Amino acid sequence: MSRVSEIYPSDKVTLRDVSLRDGLQLVREVPSTESKVEWMRREYEAGVRHFELGSFLPATRMPQFADIREMIDEAAKLKGAHSAALALNDRGATDAIETAVGEIVCVVSATEEHSNANARRSRAEAIDLVRRTAALSRSSDRKPLVSTGIAMAFGCSIAGEVPQDEVIRLAEACFEAGADIVGIADTVGFAGPAQIQSLCERMTRLCGDKPFNVHLHDTRGMGVANASAALDAGARILDGSLGGLGGCPFAPGASGNVVMEDLVFLCESKGFRTGIDLDALIAVREIPQREMPGEKLYGAVARAGLPPMVEWRR
Amino acid sequence: MSRVSEIYPSDKVTLRDVSLRDGLQLVREVPSTESKVEWMRREYEAGVRHFELGSFLPATRMPQFADIREMIDEAAKLKGAHSAALALNDRGATDAIETAVGEIVCVVSATEEHSNANARRSRAEAIDLVRRTAALSRSSDRKPLVSTGIAMAFGCSIAGEVPQDEVIRLAEACFEAGADIVGIADTVGFAGPAQIQSLCERMTRLCGDKPFNVHLHDTRGMGVANASAALDAGARILDGSLGGLGGCPFAPGASGNVVMEDLVFLCESKGFRTGIDLDALIAVREIPQREMPGEKLYGAVARAGLPPMVEWRR
Repeated sequence: MSRVSEIYPSDKVTLRDVSLRDGLQLVREVPSTESKVEWMRREYEAGVRHFELGSFLPATRMPQFADIREMIDEAAKLKGAHSAALALNDRGATDAIETAVGEIVCVVSATEEHSNANARRSRAEAIDLVRRTAALSRSSDRKPLVSTGIAMAFGCSIAGEVPQDEVIRLAEACFEAGADIVGIADTVGFAGPAQIQSLCERMTRLCGDKPFNVHLHDTRGMGVANASAALDAGARILDGSLGGLGGCPFAPGASGNVVMEDLVFLCESKGFRTGIDLDALIAVREIPQREMPGEKLYGAVARAGLPPMVEWRR
Repeated sequence: MSRVSEIYPSDKVTLRDVSLRDGLQLVREVPSTESKVEWMRREYEAGVRHFELGSFLPATRMPQFADIREMIDEAAKLKGAHSAALALNDRGATDAIETAVGEIVCVVSATEEHSNANARRSRAEAIDLVRRTAALSRSSDRKPLVSTGIAMAFGCSIAGEVPQDEVIRLAEACFEAGADIVGIADTVGFAGPAQIQSLCERMTRLCGDKPFNVHLHDTRGMGVANASAALDAGARILDGSLGGLGGCPFAPGASGNVVMEDLVFLCESKGFRTGIDLDALIAVREIPQREMPGEKLYGAVARAGLPPMVEWRR
């Protein structure tokens, strides 16, 4: 069994929490490192094993991720936990390689327009960074996984509609460049379940035994329906965010990432065991609530509680 | 073509707004009749054609539905609009028959326990009321449709799990008693999409060319995912509620009915034309907001707006 399939076994669903990265991207109040470690540990105790923890960027640009190295070290202490962090340029990749991070995440935009506007580089240049990052990883001691998230894969806030063929072509290019895992992201929450299902079916066929993840936003209320469609189409790795933390910069006031707690309910109700204790996960919400009282938390299961008779309740 | 299939054509999706009934069931502030008429008219102008308007019950018990006759008369003035109202006993059915209501809605609980606790009668007695109501309708001038909603069809707040065979048996009994349409309701929001899909597939097979509707609550965030699964399984009539109005008496603070606005987005994104102008529908939210400032409105599309490039935007 390869390392990739140990971390992402194809016969079960993996839920990755991105609240400590995507969820903190736009917040006004930045929680202390101590609180973030408590947040991760409490999620770990609830059964979460995959954590996206931040971004390797100058602390002046993203003070909320200034402690990324400490967070990675703390994750490394948790048996079976897998940490991930973004590297958006060569400097970030070089910095990441020197840590114990389990996965370095590169980002490629689905459209040339968004790539230029957001990252001031072409998509080809973004894929070259994937290639260099993968080479760095292969020549390193720890050999972290290299993943690539394709942003705006279901519609672009600048270019509008995104042809599926383009996304598939980019996914192939990312794997060819050495990515171990490729993600498709509905960055601005444009997609409905039919579109998700159709692209995930193509990704399932393209990837074979390579993993792909689906990163959804609940901007227009389709988050859980889209996750359900992704599972139906063979996707087995879903990103979620505690309390739906993580707004959309292009839709102020809109809800953010799909809510991790509701994703757990969805998966369990569909017969996919997540290994996550939902009551314990819901209890972790008190940490962001305490640390960032100005941020709105989303999620219906947390409000209503579990149905009394669910058989999968732990 | 029968009258039933004129009102519920099998080749398109029908969205029924229940905000003026289910949505007002538990509210503290009752909007004026004038506001309710404005609310219905504005939804009509946005393209909604199906309205559940209240319940034939003594005004002392449900003051919010004291104006049910006026509401039905107002609906009758709107060309192509179809009104529905609940009749929970013989008196209600007799009263309903004297109005211009388009559909009389009876309720049968999926479990004996809930039937006894909620309606103080057995399920067999509830079905007898369907039979008498259907007979009343057939001998009347206007011959309103008779529908039966099966409450707790996906899990019961008292009895727990509900066997699908029971629901199918009850649905058959309702049709046999003369119902024109049978509904399955996830009254307390226990279901996930796999359960919805499985029961809807059985209902699709059972009903043939008879219509059935699916009434969903978003209590645990599965509302839109469940609606998507219902559509995938052949359901073509979905209930929704403007702003998700309509709480769950068994889960205080929980969100209520599935949000009509988000349902429209879902259907359109799946290629089902609803005939509803989503921007105009969203604008109607100002009426409940104005009339019931203490009630929380839900819905993501209303917060985020439509994506800029959706082709089906009117």
